[in-house]
Amino acid sequence: MIAPQKSLLTLLTEPASIAVIGASDDKNKVGGRPVDYLQRFGYPGRIYPINPGRERVQGLPAYASLAQLPETPDMAIIALAGPAVSASIEACAEKGVGVAVIMSSGFAEAGDEGKEAQRRLMEIAARAGMRLIGPNSQGTADFHRGAVANFSTMFKQLPPQDGPVAVISQSGATSAALYTLLREQHIGVRYVMATGNEADVTVSELAYASLEDSALKVLVLYMESIKDPEMLVKAAALARERGVPIIAIKAGSSEKGAIAAQSHTGALSGEDDVIDVFLRQHGIWRASDLNEIAQALPLYLKGLTHIGRKLVVISNSGSSCVMSADLADTLALPMAELSTATQSGVAAALASYATSKNPIDLTAALMGNSALLKQVFEALKQDDEAQTLLVSLPVAGEGYDLDLMAEHIAAFEVESQRLVMVSSTLESILAPFRRQGIATFKGEPQALRAMDQITRHRALLRREPAHTQEAPLIILPAGVEAFLSEADSLTALASAGLPVVPHTVCNTAQEAIEAWKTTGGPVVLKACSDKLPHKSEYGLVFLNLNAEAHILAAAKKCEETMQNMGITPSYVISPMEVGRWEMALGAKNDPNYGPVIMLSDGGKYIESMPDYCLLMPPFSVEDVRRAIAGLRIAPIFGGVRGEPPIAIEPLADMAIRLANLMLRNEDVIASVDLNPVLVCTDKIVVLDALIERRHRLMPGARAARHAAPELLTD
Amino acid sequence: MIAPQKSLLTLLTEPASIAVIGASDDKNKVGGRPVDYLQRFGYPGRIYPINPGRERVQGLPAYASLAQLPETPDMAIIALAGPAVSASIEACAEKGVGVAVIMSSGFAEAGDEGKEAQRRLMEIAARAGMRLIGPNSQGTADFHRGAVANFSTMFKQLPPQDGPVAVISQSGATSAALYTLLREQHIGVRYVMATGNEADVTVSELAYASLEDSALKVLVLYMESIKDPEMLVKAAALARERGVPIIAIKAGSSEKGAIAAQSHTGALSGEDDVIDVFLRQHGIWRASDLNEIAQALPLYLKGLTHIGRKLVVISNSGSSCVMSADLADTLALPMAELSTATQSGVAAALASYATSKNPIDLTAALMGNSALLKQVFEALKQDDEAQTLLVSLPVAGEGYDLDLMAEHIAAFEVESQRLVMVSSTLESILAPFRRQGIATFKGEPQALRAMDQITRHRALLRREPAHTQEAPLIILPAGVEAFLSEADSLTALASAGLPVVPHTVCNTAQEAIEAWKTTGGPVVLKACSDKLPHKSEYGLVFLNLNAEAHILAAAKKCEETMQNMGITPSYVISPMEVGRWEMALGAKNDPNYGPVIMLSDGGKYIESMPDYCLLMPPFSVEDVRRAIAGLRIAPIFGGVRGEPPIAIEPLADMAIRLANLMLRNEDVIASVDLNPVLVCTDKIVVLDALIERRHRLMPGARAARHAAPELLTD
Repeated sequence: MIAPQKSLLTLLTEPASIAVIGASDDKNKVGGRPVDYLQRFGYPGRIYPINPGRERVQGLPAYASLAQLPETPDMAIIALAGPAVSASIEACAEKGVGVAVIMSSGFAEAGDEGKEAQRRLMEIAARAGMRLIGPNSQGTADFHRGAVANFSTMFKQLPPQDGPVAVISQSGATSAALYTLLREQHIGVRYVMATGNEADVTVSELAYASLEDSALKVLVLYMESIKDPEMLVKAAALARERGVPIIAIKAGSSEKGAIAAQSHTGALSGEDDVIDVFLRQHGIWRASDLNEIAQALPLYLKGLTHIGRKLVVISNSGSSCVMSADLADTLALPMAELSTATQSGVAAALASYATSKNPIDLTAALMGNSALLKQVFEALKQDDEAQTLLVSLPVAGEGYDLDLMAEHIAAFEVESQRLVMVSSTLESILAPFRRQGIATFKGEPQALRAMDQITRHRALLRREPAHTQEAPLIILPAGVEAFLSEADSLTALASAGLPVVPHTVCNTAQEAIEAWKTTGGPVVLKACSDKLPHKSEYGLVFLNLNAEAHILAAAKKCEETMQNMGITPSYVISPMEVGRWEMALGAKNDPNYGPVIMLSDGGKYIESMPDYCLLMPPFSVEDVRRAIAGLRIAPIFGGVRGEPPIAIEPLADMAIRLANLMLRNEDVIASVDLNPVLVCTDKIVVLDALIERRHRLMPGARAARHAAPELLTD
Repeated sequence: MIAPQKSLLTLLTEPASIAVIGASDDKNKVGGRPVDYLQRFGYPGRIYPINPGRERVQGLPAYASLAQLPETPDMAIIALAGPAVSASIEACAEKGVGVAVIMSSGFAEAGDEGKEAQRRLMEIAARAGMRLIGPNSQGTADFHRGAVANFSTMFKQLPPQDGPVAVISQSGATSAALYTLLREQHIGVRYVMATGNEADVTVSELAYASLEDSALKVLVLYMESIKDPEMLVKAAALARERGVPIIAIKAGSSEKGAIAAQSHTGALSGEDDVIDVFLRQHGIWRASDLNEIAQALPLYLKGLTHIGRKLVVISNSGSSCVMSADLADTLALPMAELSTATQSGVAAALASYATSKNPIDLTAALMGNSALLKQVFEALKQDDEAQTLLVSLPVAGEGYDLDLMAEHIAAFEVESQRLVMVSSTLESILAPFRRQGIATFKGEPQALRAMDQITRHRALLRREPAHTQEAPLIILPAGVEAFLSEADSLTALASAGLPVVPHTVCNTAQEAIEAWKTTGGPVVLKACSDKLPHKSEYGLVFLNLNAEAHILAAAKKCEETMQNMGITPSYVISPMEVGRWEMALGAKNDPNYGPVIMLSDGGKYIESMPDYCLLMPPFSVEDVRRAIAGLRIAPIFGGVRGEPPIAIEPLADMAIRLANLMLRNEDVIASVDLNPVLVCTDKIVVLDALIERRHRLMPGARAARHAAPELLTD
């Protein structure tokens, strides 16, 4: 058993030799296609078909078994029926193969027996330090060096071409579909890799591994589950360092499952929401479908250092101008406000009845005068407001010198370092522009959505990393209940520096009256017990009490109800506070992704009319500001109807302290609900709080986050 | 001057002869292309090129002037430079031409002089009873009979094919772009008509006129302004009667202009919102871009009488299953819940590790067993839950008998009368299905969005028409102010049968105290004057008063403030009412589209955090129910957190009464704001009201709605 000296990427893309176990002479069988592809696409290494029944396979000498090979292959492709796989993996381990690409199905995807069989494969491989792709994998492909260990039919349908894109996918079909969509757009693709059941190598690890290749400009990932979030974090960090954006689909958003959470935070922040914030936190753009990715890629591949969101639309069709401006409005892409000088310059170039404002309607005057575009560019290049240009040519034919226009656009791009996108309904109109390296689109919506995506993705990547601050380790009071009482919850939060409402624990009505008198104004009386976390559901929250008789009545009601429930009566008295708005803050420890903080509109209907956002620590005041700006209640913070704005800092400070508290006390706190949190113009205070204990390791075993997959290669 | 005996559609599509004024020998000039197209596309009538400088034009004998023609042409195409147009229109009018298609630009789109020139053209035409298309029109085209009076280059780029679709557009470029997108999808298009500046014939009128042709199955419209809403209403009604859906783009949604409305209803219901509700009211689907139309058309052309929203997804790719289910969830397309029997049937057909639940993952087992699909259909056809099927084949190649699968799908469609959609990334995979008449799509998102659109559009068209009820004519009290006082507003509404809060007008503090005593509980005191419509902005609304001293103080504050403003002090006393939720209702008379009713969440931030919907009368209780269901506050009506549901009927009754009031009093009421409207579990009451008078004909001259364009043909 020899640990592989070569990196995972080298094993997959530059193997010195490849054994194909179950090699077939039929090029359309799973075991035949890789042999064909390796030869067809110029793999320079040695190919060893393994087939005991044949002397030759597709013209190559065949071997009866792995043991008979003259050397140890870096890679073995397993194209056998399920039951035979185990023995061949044993043989690979024995021989010292670096990586086995298991195309066979019938493993974890096929029920419990398959799961067990897959576990055994992994055991064998781990012992030998051999890496596994699959099982149930369509295989890997490198179109740079021809190492195409893959059985997708699509590589025949659309010829491959090397390029700066890696497609890494759990699903083979989706990797092939992405390949197809990109190749149809004439985009070169270097890697197409499908991880299948991910017994060992995951999408995250291949993403990380592929970054060894400095020729890559963008990574496209497809995942149905994220088995190793920490590896994805590592890949995202390295990608960011290398300036390689990652676009990912995480499918399965509709598989909500039953959320039986007792906290608002738990109920609102389902797994899919947490994945959203996790990917965002690490600068990974979450795409919603394959088309969205394919349409945006031309912009990712431009390699411009800056793309501005201020848009100029230029078209030979007035209606394209109008529709583009409509869509820009929908996407919040600001239309550039051209200076008077720019407008004069544009007007000078155009016919009298064309418009020199943005959008710029060239009218049919472009027909027969293809140099018009250049004149318009001359005017625009003086104007810093004109950050990004869309040239829409929905129709064009005789009279349009597209090649000349393409030259002018390419020259303008180089000179001004600004992006120009070209859209048209017709491929034949787009082709001359694409030949000049210009980003082309089938319509204005595709272009503007791509521009919106890349500028927002870039903003994510530009975000200053925040730093985790020290926080005290909280010693929770002893207890067996799931929740802490309100008083204990408030005390714990206060010790972490969160501003909480003053509160006095009372055990008798007389104590409550004393507390009211001390307060010197209207008070709130609430039942307080770790056995009664949801007191408002029992009507045990009494607001705005300001008379002895009312305090007495409220105390009595609490006593009766609590005694009936077998709970020792106790309540807290707090001053009745008034502010600008009620919010809710929350936190939970996600078993896979760690602490998540929720900022939400408050009130009774927090779950029925949700308006919330999630943040993942570490985050900054600016992050909180951006998050709040996306809420429905954002205008309240801005100040409307003559009201002053609400300062974000106190809220951000509370959220950051809450996050640090969660990070430092991950082992003891499961969730925190602060509801309501009273927001005033320049301060904020927690009025009610509920801390949920973490009694045991939660399902999904957070501990697994720390088992880095690299250990397997030791 | 002879009034045309032929209909507008006949003139445009079956003209016995066509004169081309400004005919050119150059097939790429505006005056040359129609001569070429008419010959090329088989126009069977007589073509008369008019060109004083030539004997022949493109092989046809040319004439020096219209006067020299041997007959009166039904149609004249004007392809002259702007200044020469007027004389030729004079000549056409003189000769008795039926319709002139004016391709020349330089008219209303080119400033004030052009507007005046265009007005003169219209004057000449109207006198002669001649119809005008344009000016600034790309022309009309009928690919059934070859009457292609059009200069678009796109008819050469993509060959035309007759089909059941009409494209009618203000913009020539957009008509050509739509033609291109449809033809690229192999959809036949009969009419491509561009109305340009619409001096006379509008998109609405051509839509109406085209419905003479019973072969049409769908109308696609593009409009930047709706000049004749009543004609569009007529067209929509006829289309609905004929079962021809209309899909329209109304561009210019971002051109909001400054809304200087004093009422909430005015401020919230901008023109674009009103157009939304207007189109919806008449069963017209408002599309947001050209792709959306092109992608949905295959479904419109299927001609199925019913398409259900419950979806079954079948794929050879597990990831397509997952992504389709995600998108179905986003679009609220329910995944069909297959019966146990169906699932057993599906399971019997599939390999052991494939899933028999919906979505149905066929796995790679489909490769080499193309009859598998048929077996799955056998199981599904028993199950009424399986309403619509998506067969997603993102990848396929050797081993897939696509023709066989296409046959099976087509047979299943006929037998079950259910829709099956097929999606794939590759055109070569889709082609065999399209040949069988199956609706095909480039991806699952396109298919599901099209299905979502057509089912929702059909629901719009199925909507039972509501009827306008009689309403009293309200005599508003005399006055010169823009608004009525609150008391007068409430009285007017009460006389229309709306439930309003009891209110007593008081002129002195003593009267107010008496009114409070009579009420026998807490009251509200509000300043009341037609000179002070926005009293809360002056702090003159006092809630929950229940002591003589408090009433006195409130009355005093009103008196002081009003006297300082030079207003005779007056206030209303109403009982302090408590209910479940505060809403706002509103109404305004739109100058172009008539009365619009707004239902909105209430409160202080109605404009900052908008949550409203619009309805156009007549509408029913069911319409109100559907509208409310789309609001953010819908869960409150459903009943959440243990609360009972809120009855929709009282709200609907109020909205309907308000609508009838507006219809009956269109000349005197400009807008109505009811805010707040207190919603209780089973009743509703207006707490505050403000009626705005209609002093003069509002801008945009509603009267123009009654000038039907047909008059022009008298």
